[in-house]
Amino acid sequence: MYELGVVYRNIVRADRAVAQQLAGLGSATVHEALGRVGLMKPYMRPIQQDVQVSGTAVTVLLQPGDNWMMHVAAEQVQPGDIVVATVTAECSDGYFGDLLATSFQARGARGLIIEAGVRDTQVLRQMQFPVWSRYVSSKGTIKATPGSVNIPIVCAGAYVTPGDVVVADDDGIVVVPRARAAQTLEAARQREAREGAKRDQLASGVLGLDMYGMREPLAAAGLQYLDWQDRG
Amino acid sequence: MYELGVVYRNIVRADRAVAQQLAGLGSATVHEALGRVGLMKPYMRPIQQDVQVSGTAVTVLLQPGDNWMMHVAAEQVQPGDIVVATVTAECSDGYFGDLLATSFQARGARGLIIEAGVRDTQVLRQMQFPVWSRYVSSKGTIKATPGSVNIPIVCAGAYVTPGDVVVADDDGIVVVPRARAAQTLEAARQREAREGAKRDQLASGVLGLDMYGMREPLAAAGLQYLDWQDRG
Amino acid sequence: MYELGVVYRNIVRADRAVAQQLAGLGSATVHEALGRVGLMKPYMRPIQQDVQVSGTAVTVLLQPGDNWMMHVAAEQVQPGDIVVATVTAECSDGYFGDLLATSFQARGARGLIIEAGVRDTQVLRQMQFPVWSRYVSSKGTIKATPGSVNIPIVCAGAYVTPGDVVVADDDGIVVVPRARAAQTLEAARQREAREGAKRDQLASGVLGLDMYGMREPLAAAGLQYLDWQDRG
Amino acid sequence: MYELGVVYRNIVRADRAVAQQLAGLGSATVHEALGRVGLMKPYMRPIQQDVQVSGTAVTVLLQPGDNWMMHVAAEQVQPGDIVVATVTAECSDGYFGDLLATSFQARGARGLIIEAGVRDTQVLRQMQFPVWSRYVSSKGTIKATPGSVNIPIVCAGAYVTPGDVVVADDDGIVVVPRARAAQTLEAARQREAREGAKRDQLASGVLGLDMYGMREPLAAAGLQYLDWQDRG
Amino acid sequence: MYELGVVYRNIVRADRAVAQQLAGLGSATVHEALGRVGLMKPYMRPIQQDVQVSGTAVTVLLQPGDNWMMHVAAEQVQPGDIVVATVTAECSDGYFGDLLATSFQARGARGLIIEAGVRDTQVLRQMQFPVWSRYVSSKGTIKATPGSVNIPIVCAGAYVTPGDVVVADDDGIVVVPRARAAQTLEAARQREAREGAKRDQLASGVLGLDMYGMREPLAAAGLQYLDWQDRG
Amino acid sequence: MYELGVVYRNIVRADRAVAQQLAGLGSATVHEALGRVGLMKPYMRPIQQDVQVSGTAVTVLLQPGDNWMMHVAAEQVQPGDIVVATVTAECSDGYFGDLLATSFQARGARGLIIEAGVRDTQVLRQMQFPVWSRYVSSKGTIKATPGSVNIPIVCAGAYVTPGDVVVADDDGIVVVPRARAAQTLEAARQREAREGAKRDQLASGVLGLDMYGMREPLAAAGLQYLDWQDRG
Repeated sequence: MYELGVVYRNIVRADRAVAQQLAGLGSATVHEALGRVGLMKPYMRPIQQDVQVSGTAVTVLLQPGDNWMMHVAAEQVQPGDIVVATVTAECSDGYFGDLLATSFQARGARGLIIEAGVRDTQVLRQMQFPVWSRYVSSKGTIKATPGSVNIPIVCAGAYVTPGDVVVADDDGIVVVPRARAAQTLEAARQREAREGAKRDQLASGVLGLDMYGMREPLAAAGLQYLDWQDRG
Repeated sequence: MYELGVVYRNIVRADRAVAQQLAGLGSATVHEALGRVGLMKPYMRPIQQDVQVSGTAVTVLLQPGDNWMMHVAAEQVQPGDIVVATVTAECSDGYFGDLLATSFQARGARGLIIEAGVRDTQVLRQMQFPVWSRYVSSKGTIKATPGSVNIPIVCAGAYVTPGDVVVADDDGIVVVPRARAAQTLEAARQREAREGAKRDQLASGVLGLDMYGMREPLAAAGLQYLDWQDRG
Repeated sequence: MYELGVVYRNIVRADRAVAQQLAGLGSATVHEALGRVGLMKPYMRPIQQDVQVSGTAVTVLLQPGDNWMMHVAAEQVQPGDIVVATVTAECSDGYFGDLLATSFQARGARGLIIEAGVRDTQVLRQMQFPVWSRYVSSKGTIKATPGSVNIPIVCAGAYVTPGDVVVADDDGIVVVPRARAAQTLEAARQREAREGAKRDQLASGVLGLDMYGMREPLAAAGLQYLDWQDRG
Repeated sequence: MYELGVVYRNIVRADRAVAQQLAGLGSATVHEALGRVGLMKPYMRPIQQDVQVSGTAVTVLLQPGDNWMMHVAAEQVQPGDIVVATVTAECSDGYFGDLLATSFQARGARGLIIEAGVRDTQVLRQMQFPVWSRYVSSKGTIKATPGSVNIPIVCAGAYVTPGDVVVADDDGIVVVPRARAAQTLEAARQREAREGAKRDQLASGVLGLDMYGMREPLAAAGLQYLDWQDRG
Repeated sequence: MYELGVVYRNIVRADRAVAQQLAGLGSATVHEALGRVGLMKPYMRPIQQDVQVSGTAVTVLLQPGDNWMMHVAAEQVQPGDIVVATVTAECSDGYFGDLLATSFQARGARGLIIEAGVRDTQVLRQMQFPVWSRYVSSKGTIKATPGSVNIPIVCAGAYVTPGDVVVADDDGIVVVPRARAAQTLEAARQREAREGAKRDQLASGVLGLDMYGMREPLAAAGLQYLDWQDRG
Repeated sequence: MYELGVVYRNIVRADRAVAQQLAGLGSATVHEALGRVGLMKPYMRPIQQDVQVSGTAVTVLLQPGDNWMMHVAAEQVQPGDIVVATVTAECSDGYFGDLLATSFQARGARGLIIEAGVRDTQVLRQMQFPVWSRYVSSKGTIKATPGSVNIPIVCAGAYVTPGDVVVADDDGIVVVPRARAAQTLEAARQREAREGAKRDQLASGVLGLDMYGMREPLAAAGLQYLDWQDRG
């Protein structure tokens, strides 16, 4: 349940070293390491390409057409944070542009995840401030009604508690609960290590059918091989 | 109300110098300078990245699956124009490709805004002919039923009168009425000038909360600061 | 009607030389040469830009959230094939990533068309393995329920028989039936040859209205030219 | 171009008798009589079934998440009006419920067309106050920022001038410019009269192919009749 | 692959008695009996409620914004047929209204499935002519370009050969290949017979967990029962 | 964060009397009483009309195309519960039909909220078992992979803890946290009481402008009244 008109200070962040090392593993591997949960909906899209980031979440709950809380959030940002914002209703307005990005970047933010619109996207790319959003829109916003900062929120279908780790890249955005960040990093690394050997085998022409031992279970599941010429 | 089967010649265009100078200010700033109106819907997307254009509108009303009027429009194009096209119904067909772009470019058109589909997008990018569209589709069209050229149209939710200024970039597309072009350019420039100073302050670490004097109105609006550890 | 749990071997592929030469003509020209049919829906989008490929179809029918059949399909791939996959229901999961791409590439596949999600998109671009998909998503899949390989399928609204030619680029994806591949290549080449001369004329400022002889039929269809100043 | 913060009084309405008689002809027939223009996009849907209304437009431009102008509009409503409202950005909030409907109905409004959300839909049906909207949502709105009343607006892709006639039913919503209301009513009636005779013929088993004399033009257009058994 | 400009006569229809008896079993049961394939996409929606129909398919391929082939199709309709229509591109126009419905009904058609728009929906319900469509729209169409009748088509993701059985109700639309109609009817009946006994047990309070013997496989799959009070 | 493969028993439910009394107040009033938070996204739609229910949440996390957990959930249902289900990925399959509804109803469930598809909708209406879903689809599901029952979930953008109160009607679905159920009921009742008096005034022709004292703040916000005839 959302508390409105509240800013929480002194949130407890996941370990910074752990949070930063998750970026390089990518959202797909981290998502698998978490047990295939915690993913935001695929309508969230990056405004840039080939960028991977991770950081600790500062959360923002916004009102429709009103970005006042983004300025409030800036003060709560610490180096290594990623701002994660949502709105109390569907809204495509451009809540964030180059001025706010300048402020966030000055505070040490590593990026923005927002279930709404952003603008000044060309400048944001030039500034190398990565953003994932639902919309891109020139439409500006007002500053009239308080929302909240650093309360637990639902963003694009994922539950985010302030201080959780957020991992974002071209494939999507995954939220790692603070308490599970270290073990998820370890599991993701192991997964990646295993994948290297598999990749070499597959590149040499070995089939996944053989490498994973799938032929027997496929036969048991009833898969039949037929010849196209014998098809009726 | 749409008149069908009509081409208006000798439309009255906004001042060319004004029209061209609006491009550099960007759709977001121009939209703010206009009072936050005149924006097309955010489902209109560029086929290229990092391009800003502006120009005077030549409008086209098309029939579903029929691009005949695009050829009629080419004759009405003058250097500095942007063609703005819509269809009498939702249609994803590819109404525009490299041949029409060659013709438009030869006439001096600066770009195309179309609430429908386009094709040959790779070639269009190579030609540096910028396009914003709702769809990309290889599907071709016929030439059988007249629409209109240079009548007032609604394109992606915005009302466009021939001769209005259109400003388009990665953030969206804004329509500036001819009669307000000069004052909007002036307002946008002032806005941009103010933003430069703000950007410097924010980059130095000053918070928007202080720079904009938001702390008092936020307190008046009831915003409370609490400590995360004290949360129940 | 879909047969489930079946893999057809020894499918009959379109002539390889024909299949490969269709890529350079592009999906729009090939689609026209086919008589404006055979196009997939425009919601299928490339994960890369400015890439044109063509090849012979190896088809895959997948179950929701289950990519088991992708591994089965890898064995059926021959150099010059493009894998075309769909799911028995709408599903945005990431069915395909860098490991499967490594395997497909090792087998000689030229790309993947999938009416579902993919992941590891940054790596896929680095590998230069082209993909067209409906979604991008980090969400992984299980391997539990057989689908089929090399049965006729409907993918994004197009009917695909194994061995058909698939032509894909930034504009979309078109399916050329095996039996019509050679004549379609010929028709597409003729079309392209004609377009070269037209492009030159249009670039020199000749209007399509004159080049195509449209003025008379437009007048016959009732198109009227009026002066803007005379508008009520 | 939208003027913000303005209410126009004493708008010029289409003739009331004409406006009311258009309802019975239905949106499809009126749309044809207008020359197939003036239709709102098909995402506008009624909250009730089997209701046809028409009336003169009182227009409203709303701000995102803010329904203040609906109260301002109530005062401008006269018996026989239909309120037509849009928002400066996409917004799914519930801008209108049973209290506003009570007020509108007391003023003589015949219905509401809104490119946004509404709520209390069960009660609205019980009150027999017809509504067409883009969304249904329980989400309430604030009253903080002025929009406008009785300016020309774009609603769901249609241009609406205050005083125009709006015809709405289960098929959609069509806007008839005030100046063309009488001639459109006449054309629609003639069209309907012709349809009665056609309906009788078709009901008796006469084919449209014969009734409309289509066989010859179809043959001229190249249509071929083949026998299924002769298909390859 | 679509053949354009062709009408096939004397198609081979599934057995009429079989076709008619499938209606009562419903699309969900028939879909299961077919092995969970053959379903149209869920964006196809009925314009009426609580109606189940089945019949043999007469197929129509339409051009965008052009319903000429619907009149051609009427002649091919025989009592017990359902017309299944699609367009060569996405199109929301109203291709079908009360006049065509009168003609189809006079010919014995049992309904219409169309991946496009329809209009006159209130009258269609009064006529008890059932329709499933993707859109509802007042927008009319022209009659200018031939498509085809009774060729195999893809409609809403399903492959339909003329003469196949179509089963439609509030849950969706399933296509049963002619050659499998009888066996599918038998399988669907058996499935339904089994469901009656299950329904009685479940209504008496027996759990599916016990009735289907799921407790053991769930435990084997690792499902754990915990007490909420013991949750951390 | 989702725990997979877990069923929590003995959840703590909101007071039953409070939970049941919230239904009659409706989702819009309850949502306002909660401070305009806790609402599910408006893409959730009822399969029936004019039904209001409320109850305590039993939550279900499902796997794509797999409804095994619905049977597990049935055992956890107590009279007065509403089952609230979501899937780990977007899925339109029909997870729920008349057999499961029979079981849920026998256990005392008051309805189902599911961010996925349902089927047998005609029968569900006849059974008077209310359902809100994102999709309707005949497509069946398998029973192969465990999800969870009675863990906190995100359903259609709302965070739901087992035992929370869910209020659903034609306008949408709102989730009331267990700890706030009683105070929300009280606030909603007061709100409704106030609305009765307002409704009477508005029905008598009093304007909201006067009843709410809006004229002064509107003037302060700069709203201007002009005469249409004086418009340029």
